[in-house]
Amino acid sequence: MANFITIGERLSTTAPAVNKAFTERDPEPILARAKQQLDAGAVYLDVNIGPAENDGEDLMKWVVELLQSNFDNVPLALDTSNMKAIEAGISVYNRSKGKPIVNSADAAGRIGYLDLAAANDAICIALCNGEGLAKDNDERMMYCQTLLERGMEHGMDAADIWFDPLFLVVKGMQEKQMEILEAIKMFSDMGLNSTGGLSNNSNGMPKHIRPIMDSAMVAMAMMQGLTSAIVNPNDKRLMETIKSCDVLKNNTLYADSYLEL
Amino acid sequence: MANFITIGERLSTTAPAVNKAFTERDPEPILARAKQQLDAGAVYLDVNIGPAENDGEDLMKWVVELLQSNFDNVPLALDTSNMKAIEAGISVYNRSKGKPIVNSADAAGRIGYLDLAAANDAICIALCNGEGLAKDNDERMMYCQTLLERGMEHGMDAADIWFDPLFLVVKGMQEKQMEILEAIKMFSDMGLNSTGGLSNNSNGMPKHIRPIMDSAMVAMAMMQGLTSAIVNPNDKRLMETIKSCDVLKNNTLYADSYLEL
Repeated sequence: MANFITIGERLSTTAPAVNKAFTERDPEPILARAKQQLDAGAVYLDVNIGPAENDGEDLMKWVVELLQSNFDNVPLALDTSNMKAIEAGISVYNRSKGKPIVNSADAAGRIGYLDLAAANDAICIALCNGEGLAKDNDERMMYCQTLLERGMEHGMDAADIWFDPLFLVVKGMQEKQMEILEAIKMFSDMGLNSTGGLSNNSNGMPKHIRPIMDSAMVAMAMMQGLTSAIVNPNDKRLMETIKSCDVLKNNTLYADSYLEL
Repeated sequence: MANFITIGERLSTTAPAVNKAFTERDPEPILARAKQQLDAGAVYLDVNIGPAENDGEDLMKWVVELLQSNFDNVPLALDTSNMKAIEAGISVYNRSKGKPIVNSADAAGRIGYLDLAAANDAICIALCNGEGLAKDNDERMMYCQTLLERGMEHGMDAADIWFDPLFLVVKGMQEKQMEILEAIKMFSDMGLNSTGGLSNNSNGMPKHIRPIMDSAMVAMAMMQGLTSAIVNPNDKRLMETIKSCDVLKNNTLYADSYLEL
């Protein structure tokens, strides 16, 4: 089995400093955050430019070139509701370290993102939601099927569709956590790749608890076959847990220095 | 589902200070270690008096009465290869906080421990080993079946047999870890309880790594349905992980203070 793939989440307009740097095309804060994440072991970096309705194409091209030229063609996930901006980003993207990831399709209004990924030989994150949250795993797996068929109809390799069960917040939806974990097992049993915004589960918890809860969740999810997650790679406990689960799953050979690798 | 049950492992003759206190019938070091474990959230305490061939009966009675009189009839696991010492311990054991645990039977020379547990209405840890290590899960589950039948023939409730897959050391048997985790899932799918000496898996690793590896392992094992483990409850990271998995499994209701409870 391949090692778990971490996608660093910290280049996002939801962070005011990043938003400002994107707007002002100021490289320094972006390069600093990218370096922090890569030094901590992130494999991919997510680039979330928000809706970016006015200048999304120009902005995405600028960020992709900035990051790839500074960090040896680091592979990227392109994350925006502006489809043209994603295409623009891919047009300047260097694939030598991995295909671009389109973030993200769903089984309703955003299903066209799969077509975009297919047309550009990209990986696509496929959120198993329709117009709203899936009410149970029957509905979640129906969306999974819809997304899988759509991707394959457009010539995608099933391995390039990374199914996202949508991690739900414990504070409010505690009784749904095992259902999400069971969905991951179903993806895995079907031989499918999976991913998701893991830290959703600890949203609203006290700050010192979040790494503890996220680490428990990622270990349980990796047991179920989760192959990737969108995470904060600067959460040391989380990254230690991911590396340890990769050892226990025999994905990585154990060495006393495995946490430093 | 019931909360995960931790069995504190720190009252063992393998610790020189404990061995000395057992030999000299010196209460203070024993009470101090018991209190540390209970304060950290241990449910049961394991009392491992070693082979105790000469004075095992007297020693086990003394330890059981010492611990139960000082800690409100704390439930105990009685752990020795001297069967008469286990019976002696049970003869003075107060069950108000839980049945005694007999630690442990196996499917070969120690299968009689199940009969002892059955005769005394005790819980029994049942190691799924024969004369040697099970070579795979077919053999492991054959031992499970042997142990289950033996216990039930003697009138035990299946829930009182806690099946132990035997956690194996990563350094040397890395490729066996998923097999152990799959065995736990098989126990769980059969509706059986399970336990084991979890920290075996991190034996020989640098000291700072063990809590990290053990925490990853316990979360994966709890996902598979492990219901109990013999652990060091003073490993804070491990206990935080167990409490978090109990929340994710919806065994415990989440509160911002859940780690302090």
